[in-house]
Amino acid sequence: MRSFQELTVESNNWIEDSLTKVFDEELKDDITVKASYYSLLAGGKRIRPCLMYYSAKMLGVDVQKVLPFAVSLEMIHTYSLIHDDLPSMDNDDLRRGNPTCHKVYGEGIALLAGDNLLNRSFELIFQEVVKDNSLALAGATMARLSGIHGMIGGQSIDLSSEGTDIPVETLYELQRKKTGALLEAAITMPCYVGGKTGEELELLKKLSEHVGLAFQIMDDILDVESNSEELGKSTGKDERDNKSTFVSIFGLDGAHSKLNAEVEGCNKVLGRLVELGYNTEELTTIVKFLSERTF
Amino acid sequence: MRSFQELTVESNNWIEDSLTKVFDEELKDDITVKASYYSLLAGGKRIRPCLMYYSAKMLGVDVQKVLPFAVSLEMIHTYSLIHDDLPSMDNDDLRRGNPTCHKVYGEGIALLAGDNLLNRSFELIFQEVVKDNSLALAGATMARLSGIHGMIGGQSIDLSSEGTDIPVETLYELQRKKTGALLEAAITMPCYVGGKTGEELELLKKLSEHVGLAFQIMDDILDVESNSEELGKSTGKDERDNKSTFVSIFGLDGAHSKLNAEVEGCNKVLGRLVELGYNTEELTTIVKFLSERTF
Repeated sequence: MRSFQELTVESNNWIEDSLTKVFDEELKDDITVKASYYSLLAGGKRIRPCLMYYSAKMLGVDVQKVLPFAVSLEMIHTYSLIHDDLPSMDNDDLRRGNPTCHKVYGEGIALLAGDNLLNRSFELIFQEVVKDNSLALAGATMARLSGIHGMIGGQSIDLSSEGTDIPVETLYELQRKKTGALLEAAITMPCYVGGKTGEELELLKKLSEHVGLAFQIMDDILDVESNSEELGKSTGKDERDNKSTFVSIFGLDGAHSKLNAEVEGCNKVLGRLVELGYNTEELTTIVKFLSERTF
Repeated sequence: MRSFQELTVESNNWIEDSLTKVFDEELKDDITVKASYYSLLAGGKRIRPCLMYYSAKMLGVDVQKVLPFAVSLEMIHTYSLIHDDLPSMDNDDLRRGNPTCHKVYGEGIALLAGDNLLNRSFELIFQEVVKDNSLALAGATMARLSGIHGMIGGQSIDLSSEGTDIPVETLYELQRKKTGALLEAAITMPCYVGGKTGEELELLKKLSEHVGLAFQIMDDILDVESNSEELGKSTGKDERDNKSTFVSIFGLDGAHSKLNAEVEGCNKVLGRLVELGYNTEELTTIVKFLSERTF
């Protein structure tokens, strides 16, 4: 059985090669392109491509066919980080261990770089749909999950509830959308690409919800328990910003037990997928790692 | 023969009804949705939907089939205005006679509202493509024209050349992309939607290039000759910002003669379309108005 690190070597090669190829065809002299790829190629954990890759492998869907969607998703994730880091939002100086985009390129270009990555992500998908019409639903799903019913909706709740105590249900809704939606895109996109829209899709949606919440609870825990050197981004921010988090609402012990509940939820879904005849070994390793990570 | 005002009554009803219908299906309590539609429904000249409508009518393409693309285009145009108006970009307080989005909702939400409109515009198009696969190329074209090879590319050149004198060729490239690309989307989208991708498409591309430049030269002239009450936005900004414009490079008289050259270019293309058997009466009225407008 391969470790998480071994698994990510394979999926990281897959995505990094492709991101570099896309970059090679860009207008490299353009300052907005430079700023976009400064952030896009800055590493990061590449959790979403990893999940998409091993979800596709489990389902038996061609990973080459899934690849443009992984590129698109990394672009969307990266644009959201660039915009989130701006002074008018989270005002962060450090991201993935490097200065944030606007610290290097200025606020105006960072704003434009985010817009560019969002636009480019859909441009890439439309190009795929032109070649293969059966991918239209995958594109529509990606756009829904990154939009107001998904990630942007989560950011909106987050921004409008800053500095106020929010009820638990709102915290769950916020995180389901803000973090969960793109993880849902990562895990379920192979279903849409490969036409596996039966029970597999429902199960993978559930899995992504549990993974998303586990991931976010872990994020909240690490913001308290870790330091910025280990994490590659600022820590202790949630408390300073008076943000409602799983830790502020449930306490550290409470957050850990909420985390365990989500991990159990994951395992239940994975068990059902095994019953359906799928080999869930790799997804199980990834889920286990994400719920125990220290960075 | 109907006047420009009479023509826009018809095309404005067409687009406003549809924007209102889209709004009705949104999460209306969400602050980002409110901010998005504050700007989207704030009126504006609706030049792009008007051009798309009468281009479709000239070509004999069903305007109902074109409608989602007009909605999408207005969303993209509006998001670009919201982001452009932010303090880190043009820092404008006034837009279409009203306070800009960030003046009303704050910078963070305005940023998110722009992201939302861009995302939503592609979400709407993907939904259409799911229903009718033949629209994929129209979607891909829209994404290309609003992206780094189109509008965003123009903004990038604009932003990176601020405060410096730029060569004439760069000014033309900038404006072809920044203003021209979305006008090309407006005028040519009916070709892609209706499958008219022969000589009509080439001609309408040329027409849009001339219209785009005429429109921008007029904008530069009005920034000098008009006042903010008439124009509904700040004037005299170009000079204050030390921006290279058609007026700063060619002088007022020079800019007027460049404008005339573009109008002649328009008329030549319209003449060729008449030779092909198309009734260009309405497009001709619109082009004439745009090159003589005072707001």
